[in-house]
Amino acid sequence: MPQGKPETVPDDGLTTRQRRRQPVLAVHTGQGKGKSTAAFGMALRAWSAGWPIVVYQFVKSPKWKVGEEAALRALGETGKGGHVTWHKMGEGWSWIQRPGTERDHAAEAAEGWAQIKRDLAAESYRFYVLDEFTYPMKWGWVDVADVVATLRDRPDGQHVVVTGRDAPAALVDLADLVTDMTKVKHPMDAGRKGQQGIEW
Amino acid sequence: MPQGKPETVPDDGLTTRQRRRQPVLAVHTGQGKGKSTAAFGMALRAWSAGWPIVVYQFVKSPKWKVGEEAALRALGETGKGGHVTWHKMGEGWSWIQRPGTERDHAAEAAEGWAQIKRDLAAESYRFYVLDEFTYPMKWGWVDVADVVATLRDRPDGQHVVVTGRDAPAALVDLADLVTDMTKVKHPMDAGRKGQQGIEW
Repeated sequence: MPQGKPETVPDDGLTTRQRRRQPVLAVHTGQGKGKSTAAFGMALRAWSAGWPIVVYQFVKSPKWKVGEEAALRALGETGKGGHVTWHKMGEGWSWIQRPGTERDHAAEAAEGWAQIKRDLAAESYRFYVLDEFTYPMKWGWVDVADVVATLRDRPDGQHVVVTGRDAPAALVDLADLVTDMTKVKHPMDAGRKGQQGIEW
Repeated sequence: MPQGKPETVPDDGLTTRQRRRQPVLAVHTGQGKGKSTAAFGMALRAWSAGWPIVVYQFVKSPKWKVGEEAALRALGETGKGGHVTWHKMGEGWSWIQRPGTERDHAAEAAEGWAQIKRDLAAESYRFYVLDEFTYPMKWGWVDVADVVATLRDRPDGQHVVVTGRDAPAALVDLADLVTDMTKVKHPMDAGRKGQQGIEW
């Protein structure tokens, strides 16, 4: 239950208003459910604030996010809030003109990150979901030090949420908001498979 | 990263298809961020599946969810997915004709729960978010044993997500999916207050 009372007031010379405007870097990690789901939930607030939103989906399993994609695209199309842009690595990235070709996943992940860097530099969006972006870092496809330096030095006013298990320590150190989604119990433990409407 | 592979297959005589159709009771608890946010993220999938959705907001702090409410209402109004109904305890509950009067919170919470019981019995919705519903249970305003028995025996096909800290053990025992949102780091630790678009 949010209380809205900071425990300490930092000695950074900023007013509360200035501090409120600081962009947030959030990390949703851990073994449990809800990492991506909570990021998409945050996108609802960003949409409502009228912010341009972009989602980069870094793991090739398109089935798992089709509900969120359809919903956020539909929201974007209402014209009542922020625009929504959605890029999927598994389909060759939306900005690339030759989708569908089977390519090297490491190269594809690196291309995704290069585009994120361009977007941040150009201030193309105000709310970024880098979904399952911890995995290309973990697998060495994207350089963690480059990610940390880029996010640290990004132009002002751009909020970023990174999701995925095993977030690198340097990213956790940099982040403002880190939540570990801890699995207590999961239907798959009891032999249930995922179902439409709940799992995708 | 979802794998979709159950670790065990239960000896319950159900086919995978039947098991997939079992309604889910999920609990998002813990001290960290993302409990409600992930529930609203799940609502995106439910909307996309065309399911009627209802949200019951049990704690009086309307400022904190206005973004999600606006977004989910806007989605419901597109007519492309499920309908969305949103009830707020803090405003006297939407189905009550005399909103705005200052009333006893315990009685109001009990009225909310009574309406949920009616909705479940009538199968009014397919996806229920009982937001911050752990608190009225914790404070003794709603009887935990009644909640557990009602949710256990609810008519089929109705998915329920309960959010809030300190979920009662009996509810956790009953639930299919329990995630503890564990706080690793939060901007308020560094003296930042919440900001629009991120916190509400």
